[in-house]
Amino acid sequence: MKLNHIGIAVEDMEAARKLYGEVMGFKVGEPEHLVDRGLVVCFVDVGGANVELLYPTDPESAVGKFLAKKGPGIHHLCYEVDDVQAKLDSLKASGVRLLNETPMPGAHNTLVAFVHPKSVGGVLTEFCQPK
Amino acid sequence: MKLNHIGIAVEDMEAARKLYGEVMGFKVGEPEHLVDRGLVVCFVDVGGANVELLYPTDPESAVGKFLAKKGPGIHHLCYEVDDVQAKLDSLKASGVRLLNETPMPGAHNTLVAFVHPKSVGGVLTEFCQPK
Repeated sequence: MKLNHIGIAVEDMEAARKLYGEVMGFKVGEPEHLVDRGLVVCFVDVGGANVELLYPTDPESAVGKFLAKKGPGIHHLCYEVDDVQAKLDSLKASGVRLLNETPMPGAHNTLVAFVHPKSVGGVLTEFCQPK
Repeated sequence: MKLNHIGIAVEDMEAARKLYGEVMGFKVGEPEHLVDRGLVVCFVDVGGANVELLYPTDPESAVGKFLAKKGPGIHHLCYEVDDVQAKLDSLKASGVRLLNETPMPGAHNTLVAFVHPKSVGGVLTEFCQPK
């Protein structure tokens, strides 16, 4: 298991891509529209892990509601695992509260599931399994 | 430049060390007391980067105030650079607002400086230079 990415909610995707690219000097990927999730995502290679810029196209999406309530900033951490269902089962057995009992399709052809921040020290935590 | 760590404010260091170690399965280091900063820090190797657990011993410290206001959760991101002063100069020239004009001593014998979250999409951002 290792850190895969840090999800950051942004108010303006092009401004965020310029910030992480031109200003901070990282390699910024192309935006990907996840229509079903009402979200445009864009990965930034920050060395050893990625920043995932998250721009909601749907204000009723999870990230849309986050932005409206808290403003832009860090939204979640994602760890990569070989078997996300096994990880969920193991966490649940340890008393961790799951947001997804079964994995769902994520960006970049992954399977993903989220764990409730209340069970993980206030950090919305995602686990992803590359297909 | 690459991601060095993700700082996470915690209300109970031993519970957090158990969560990241026993429950999540990461290698958790020993806590380090930064007396001058009113902070106990503990690094967790999450593969490619670290989680830095932050427990304030001084409620008037930056992390103490963060915990009181926002509760536990992600506090900052830190990127590692070869020359933190040069990075600060470059960011300032790009219009980024600095919280520290000159670097200060950080954990693990580093030099560190913070950039204002308003300039970086709502993310409190630290740069560190290993000595």
